Amino acid sequence: MKTRIIEPDHFVHRYPLLIKHLLETPIIYAPYQQIIYRDSICYTYSDLAGRVAQLANALESMGVTAGQTVGVMDWDSHRYLECFFAVPMMGAVLHTINVHFSKDQLVYTINHAQDDVLIANADFLPLLEAVRDKINTVKKIILINDSREHLSTLLKLDAEYETLLADNPEAYTFPDFDENSLATVFYTAGTTGGPKGVFYSHRQIVLHTFCVMAALSGFSSQANISSADVYMPITPMFHVHAWGMPYLMTHLGARQVYPGRYEPDMLLHLKTKEKVTFSHCAPDILHMLINCEAAKKTDFSDWKMIIGGSVLSKGLCRSAMQLGVNLFTGYGMSETCPVLCISNLKPHMSDWSQSEQIDMRCRTGLPISHVQLKVLNEHGRSVAWDGKTTGEIVVRAPWLTSGYFNDFEKSSELWEKGWLHTGDIGFIDEDGYLQITDRLKDAIKSGSEWISSVQLENIVSEHPSVSQAAVIGVPDDKWGQRPLLIVVLKPEFRDKTSEQDFKDFFLEYIQNGKLSKFAVPDKIVFTESLAKTSEGKVNKRALRRQYIC
Amino acid sequence: MKTRIIEPDHFVHRYPLLIKHLLETPIIYAPYQQIIYRDSICYTYSDLAGRVAQLANALESMGVTAGQTVGVMDWDSHRYLECFFAVPMMGAVLHTINVHFSKDQLVYTINHAQDDVLIANADFLPLLEAVRDKINTVKKIILINDSREHLSTLLKLDAEYETLLADNPEAYTFPDFDENSLATVFYTAGTTGGPKGVFYSHRQIVLHTFCVMAALSGFSSQANISSADVYMPITPMFHVHAWGMPYLMTHLGARQVYPGRYEPDMLLHLKTKEKVTFSHCAPDILHMLINCEAAKKTDFSDWKMIIGGSVLSKGLCRSAMQLGVNLFTGYGMSETCPVLCISNLKPHMSDWSQSEQIDMRCRTGLPISHVQLKVLNEHGRSVAWDGKTTGEIVVRAPWLTSGYFNDFEKSSELWEKGWLHTGDIGFIDEDGYLQITDRLKDAIKSGSEWISSVQLENIVSEHPSVSQAAVIGVPDDKWGQRPLLIVVLKPEFRDKTSEQDFKDFFLEYIQNGKLSKFAVPDKIVFTESLAKTSEGKVNKRALRRQYIC
Repeated sequence: MKTRIIEPDHFVHRYPLLIKHLLETPIIYAPYQQIIYRDSICYTYSDLAGRVAQLANALESMGVTAGQTVGVMDWDSHRYLECFFAVPMMGAVLHTINVHFSKDQLVYTINHAQDDVLIANADFLPLLEAVRDKINTVKKIILINDSREHLSTLLKLDAEYETLLADNPEAYTFPDFDENSLATVFYTAGTTGGPKGVFYSHRQIVLHTFCVMAALSGFSSQANISSADVYMPITPMFHVHAWGMPYLMTHLGARQVYPGRYEPDMLLHLKTKEKVTFSHCAPDILHMLINCEAAKKTDFSDWKMIIGGSVLSKGLCRSAMQLGVNLFTGYGMSETCPVLCISNLKPHMSDWSQSEQIDMRCRTGLPISHVQLKVLNEHGRSVAWDGKTTGEIVVRAPWLTSGYFNDFEKSSELWEKGWLHTGDIGFIDEDGYLQITDRLKDAIKSGSEWISSVQLENIVSEHPSVSQAAVIGVPDDKWGQRPLLIVVLKPEFRDKTSEQDFKDFFLEYIQNGKLSKFAVPDKIVFTESLAKTSEGKVNKRALRRQYIC
Repeated sequence: MKTRIIEPDHFVHRYPLLIKHLLETPIIYAPYQQIIYRDSICYTYSDLAGRVAQLANALESMGVTAGQTVGVMDWDSHRYLECFFAVPMMGAVLHTINVHFSKDQLVYTINHAQDDVLIANADFLPLLEAVRDKINTVKKIILINDSREHLSTLLKLDAEYETLLADNPEAYTFPDFDENSLATVFYTAGTTGGPKGVFYSHRQIVLHTFCVMAALSGFSSQANISSADVYMPITPMFHVHAWGMPYLMTHLGARQVYPGRYEPDMLLHLKTKEKVTFSHCAPDILHMLINCEAAKKTDFSDWKMIIGGSVLSKGLCRSAMQLGVNLFTGYGMSETCPVLCISNLKPHMSDWSQSEQIDMRCRTGLPISHVQLKVLNEHGRSVAWDGKTTGEIVVRAPWLTSGYFNDFEKSSELWEKGWLHTGDIGFIDEDGYLQITDRLKDAIKSGSEWISSVQLENIVSEHPSVSQAAVIGVPDDKWGQRPLLIVVLKPEFRDKTSEQDFKDFFLEYIQNGKLSKFAVPDKIVFTESLAKTSEGKVNKRALRRQYIC
């Protein structure tokens, strides 16, 4: 294959794909557009650009050079947004620290990422105090303190964020460098093993931004996103760059609202006050939002919302749509920057009934631009797009992690045969929509049949008494494995709901062919809560430890 | 500057930016969407994908390999669209031949590009016959013949396009290769010297596609473009890939209409019949469209139109808007792939009066995503954004030609000091909008003042008697240069309009401060037509030869 490669002469400028360029357009298009932090801060994109330069000057003055790592521990804030830009733009690496990690995980990830400087919200000082002597590489700590009151701490703090910025000039010449330079790193606990680091280059983040834009702005669907939207993240910025949306919405010059720590009252207050039109969140947060006290006084209409992180159940989708939320699914992983699929409806589906639309909105979705996605059978061959044949989902895209940070063996497993293995099982339907049916590790093999825990959980979510539910496989002498259903009932249904109620409920699904009789759990356990991972997902590994003796 | 470069292990897939990926998403999102050719052909995106594979197989069977060049001579057609994809996707180079070139220019460009195969519409056979023995590198010729009747020609034709496709399979594995591989080449006559070749890589075309999408789909403005639009090019596909719009609109899976040779009746017929909502064209074509006989019976509303190629005068803009056309300016050059600027209105301008909006719609526009644009004064420094200080416009973007094909000297001039020199003079206003005031070579230096020929032409275009006008500088003993106005009157105004009418007309502009007295032409010449370049622009070089003795 000998194509003719363009080799520019030395005098030709070569244009690398760098995060700094994402910030250039909005400064021209929307310099007066607002960025809001809770009830306390409102500033413009011009201010953002000035503060990004101040932060870069400040970090440089504290000794941060290209190639060094800056760890951030904060809730979702305008300051985090400043770090999203300033740190990679100066050639340093942004480590977005998961503040839900245990102390051990925190120590492990900060040491493993070799953070040179930490920027930490006052809320996390007690945590940091407790582990400071186990952290090896951190030379300086910068405090973020919303209250601006004096703090008593045993930690040596080197600067306070706002004072630091005020002391530094609002101009900085961000240099050009290789677009494959490391921009961000963060850790995923996953459901097995210790935290694993994933990492992304400038090129990857820029291309991810554009391809998500193609899916949300270019392809006309149930919910198009543009610079006219008002954006508020409800997936943490430490979790896969809040799905990369802060980069996209900043590039578009949209109005943005950063809510700090996620408190239902504050989120709904900001939704109303700032007229938020676009968010993304996980099912449990959505569940909390629509069921909290403030929800009764909130107008949920004109709120486009992408749901990801775990499966969006049809029951939750219906409840939210009845309130006016325009919601649909996004699919991705920490390893994939993250977006792979979005459940955009095709034009002919706009005439469908709400119930048919919900089926599609809850689908895992269509692969976005530049995502190549295959479902492989046990022989490693692509299965037909028939809406039923399942297999492991593998992907290629320009923005997948090149592996796990300093872990050759797990990296080579992840990238077996040149495709990133998602560890998810699913099928593709005739229209090209992916549907995940299970995690590879969570799938239940019973006799010679696979039983989908996700399908069962989805059905159970439609039962009026259910707050949350999980299905795991438990050993069975005859069948190998059988499904066990674990249910958290809504308070008002406790002591009023029995195993038999669910068995009757399943009967309906069996009768209309939506569930095989074989898949009905033999046993149902009622409990008060489900174990969760630090990323807020149901922790099936913990459930298996708990329920399988 | 030592950033940390990500160096993926051998097992990690590296994803190049290739044109083939632009065709993958629409095949999933919109396989049944239609592509239409005049009144004669209507097929789906699935068909397109099949025919692209057939064309690649066909070319391969005729000996075309990666790195070879395929020249195309056709009007805008679905077949041209197939060439836009198939030729670069197989690693070969697409040479889009300007069918308006003179015989000498045609011979020069085909030989200079070293075309191996030609795909030519029957309309151009007489032209090819006349020059065949001067063309050195072409080994095979493939005929495109709409009428499918037998042709009598002295040329040796090696295949007919449709027969060739029918003989080849609808599947082809398009390989991965370096994203910097040459994808397209074509020649620009410019206004000085012989044709010069410009060339683009896969990476450049992909990035151009995404950044144009950001401006047209992501940024909410007077005319947003999405997959729901119906697209018809009215700028030839041989002219800078029809501004790259066929790549964008195909990637979005939009309905597309290819009009063949530009005939006003057919264009307006297709606009109406196929409900076209998005086009781009040059001012002269728009002028022809709104003034032709069929225009009286045409509903021009819901037609978003980008005008480029030459300056959009306020007079023409007003006339077209009164008919319902939603038009605005795009700016670019053959050397820039081409889009640099689009005159998107900012949100607060949507409340402005039509006359104020026309001012902005006729502006050269805002730089699109990833375009860095500077206006340099005579000392090479950026001028202030004050809406008046002019200088030469220089740019950087990821999709600028690396030079002129095999012309080191002109390439190094083009890229002087690492910026591409557009040869245009302009200013930037406080809102960041660029306004071109002149071509560097057309600017008139009179005494110590610059006089803008474009400003004068724009004012003259508002006079009711004017069909077309041009201003050139002529030598003057006292002032060095003085402006000469050359006017083509509308037929009904001939013999009824005098030099004095124009002088009175200018007086008004002088009085309200829009024109300096000094800039008023001393002399006005009436003529029946203006010399044009092969790209349809007013040829000022020819006018200077004609009017300066």
